[in-house]
Amino acid sequence: MTRVAVWLGDAAEDQEWVDLLSSLLPGIEVMPMDTAGAPDIDYAVVWAPPAGALARHPGLKAIVSVGAGVDHVLRDPELPKHLPILRTTGPDMVQRLREYVALHVLAHHRDLMTTDAQQGRAEWKQLVTPVASKRRVGVMGLGRIGAACARTLAGLGFDTAGWSRSPREVAGVAPFHGGSGLHDFLSRTEILVCLLPLTDQTRDILNADLFARLPRGAAVINAGRGGHLVEADLIAALDKGQLSGATLDVFRTEPMPADHPFWQHPRIRVTPHIASYIDAATGASVVASSILAFDRNGTAPDVADANRGY
Amino acid sequence: MTRVAVWLGDAAEDQEWVDLLSSLLPGIEVMPMDTAGAPDIDYAVVWAPPAGALARHPGLKAIVSVGAGVDHVLRDPELPKHLPILRTTGPDMVQRLREYVALHVLAHHRDLMTTDAQQGRAEWKQLVTPVASKRRVGVMGLGRIGAACARTLAGLGFDTAGWSRSPREVAGVAPFHGGSGLHDFLSRTEILVCLLPLTDQTRDILNADLFARLPRGAAVINAGRGGHLVEADLIAALDKGQLSGATLDVFRTEPMPADHPFWQHPRIRVTPHIASYIDAATGASVVASSILAFDRNGTAPDVADANRGY
Ligand SMILES: NC(=O)c1ccc[n+]([C@@H]2O[C@H](COP(=O)([O-])OP(=O)(O)OC[C@H]3O[C@@H](n4cnc5c(N)ncnc54)[C@H](OP(=O)(O)O)[C@@H]3O)[C@@H](O)[C@H]2O)c1
Ligand SMILES: NC(=O)c1ccc[n+]([C@@H]2O[C@H](COP(=O)([O-])OP(=O)(O)OC[C@H]3O[C@@H](n4cnc5c(N)ncnc54)[C@H](OP(=O)(O)O)[C@@H]3O)[C@@H](O)[C@H]2O)c1
Repeated sequence: MTRVAVWLGDAAEDQEWVDLLSSLLPGIEVMPMDTAGAPDIDYAVVWAPPAGALARHPGLKAIVSVGAGVDHVLRDPELPKHLPILRTTGPDMVQRLREYVALHVLAHHRDLMTTDAQQGRAEWKQLVTPVASKRRVGVMGLGRIGAACARTLAGLGFDTAGWSRSPREVAGVAPFHGGSGLHDFLSRTEILVCLLPLTDQTRDILNADLFARLPRGAAVINAGRGGHLVEADLIAALDKGQLSGATLDVFRTEPMPADHPFWQHPRIRVTPHIASYIDAATGASVVASSILAFDRNGTAPDVADANRGY
Repeated sequence: MTRVAVWLGDAAEDQEWVDLLSSLLPGIEVMPMDTAGAPDIDYAVVWAPPAGALARHPGLKAIVSVGAGVDHVLRDPELPKHLPILRTTGPDMVQRLREYVALHVLAHHRDLMTTDAQQGRAEWKQLVTPVASKRRVGVMGLGRIGAACARTLAGLGFDTAGWSRSPREVAGVAPFHGGSGLHDFLSRTEILVCLLPLTDQTRDILNADLFARLPRGAAVINAGRGGHLVEADLIAALDKGQLSGATLDVFRTEPMPADHPFWQHPRIRVTPHIASYIDAATGASVVASSILAFDRNGTAPDVADANRGY
């Protein structure tokens, strides 16, 4: 009998997913994952499993990441590298990120931080911002999520560019790629959105050198991963005015500790990893259909490449 | 010789418009408006002219309102009612309102006020909001501006409705109209955007009775005119939780006095009449082409109806 095990790091949440997946996968046994290795399972549905736990299940056929990113799986030094990793995206996840990116790009574009600060001082002062067609925004990462967000920004009227590893065409979006395209992409980008996966190539990419290549006063939105951002470099760039503001959804340590300087910085907006969200009901149905497709065909629509890192 | 006079209430701004219009209207004399009546002018380009000033220019052929609304012209009790009033909209004005409406609808949709308050307390708490397709938003007023904003919200994925005086079809937007359509429109609307003109029919329309017909916890955005909103009713509806928040761009008195309670209310976001903006260069070219079209044909693309009130 085919067996699926779930590990999300929280017993109640695991049980909710077990129940949902059981009803969606008749004839398949679904259970919480035993990190010690017993019994033998075919599929592991996981978020940030403990190091070594997957290696203790030698019968595994595939790993299902409950999320678009797979960095939380790949960071396991004992990971069985030959196993396919099925990603979980789905329309709701992409839609939620479109909303988040549109909201926070518009907030920087219309300088909501300054308007809000004026409100706090009961100060009536009309700021004039350029119209969106004169505002250059750029999205790093043109995958399932980044491409949809770039299209959304173009639809709102922004002068939009995108940056990817290989050349990518997205309608209405000026394309840049690779190391050679990065400088030109950055030098035109007044509002930068990071939607990269976290890999050895992209770790620490949002650093002092990158900020210095943006036009003075640019804003940065990080909805990729906390590991993309060199935190001290961001504060330095804000404090010297090279950047005008930042919106951050992801952090080196989550939940972010209460004494972290980002919480109180006047030019940083913090959101607690809510840019997107997979609710159990929607997520379980995406996961169930990935498992069924893989079990039948030995492949699935959205498989990460462990060597490439995403 | 054809004469155009400008009155925006600020001498420096008037002169800037005079200079721009002079260069765009060769062979036409452009000057600041003398509110006492001399010399005789053909076109008055105005924002909120003093009562009686236009009546003292009997040779006027048309009034040009520097703005989409014409309430600031119509409120003059001595207004020569037979004169056509040319409105000034243009693509930038519509685009800026699309940005404003998208930003503030998304901010209520994703409950940015609560997320920001949590940030102030260094509190990591993941709020789950429905995906936009499950969020019902409604736009009051489906004119040049309202229709474009409703389309933008539908494009962002919201379940969008619109309300107008006469029946209007906007692609992707559920249509409601007139007194008979208002109740059904309101009872489905979780985020309400007012983009009505200020008329005798729409004055005070955002009042306790209207708020009570919205679903509990709805949010209201007013980018129409201050006269649409009964201010005390808004505060009462927020304080008893019938409304969850409001974003206001327009006020009974502008600039809003420093001791006004809206400034400090935790669930009201104030913006200082910046939803849209006609910069002199863009505005002057729209105004110049309206005047040229009217002078040639006796009509222009966007003429308000003084009897209808918009
Ligand atoms: N904050 C949140 O709630 C949240 C939610 C979901 C996802 N995310 C983040 O968003 C990321 C992207 O998701 P996705 O589904 O769009 O991923 P995806 O489909 O795998 O796309 C990744 C994109 O990044 C590009 N890329 C990768 N490495 C690069 C490099 N070294 N240089 C330049 N471009 C590079 C890829 O280029 P190619 O096109 O050339 O392959 C591709 O366009 C996830 O990995 C996750 O970190 C965050
Ligand atoms: N905050 C800002 O910066 C800013 C900037 C520009 C404009 N505005 C405001 O936005 C307003 C709308 O501009 P616009 O260019 O879109 O105006 P418009 O083209 O004249 O359209 C007005 C819309 O309101 C509807 N309407 C009028 N009276 C109504 C009533 N009694 N009941 C229901 N619907 C009614 C009209 O219905 P019909 O379609 O049936 O005629 C029409 O759809 C302006 O008047 C101004 O107050 C604000």
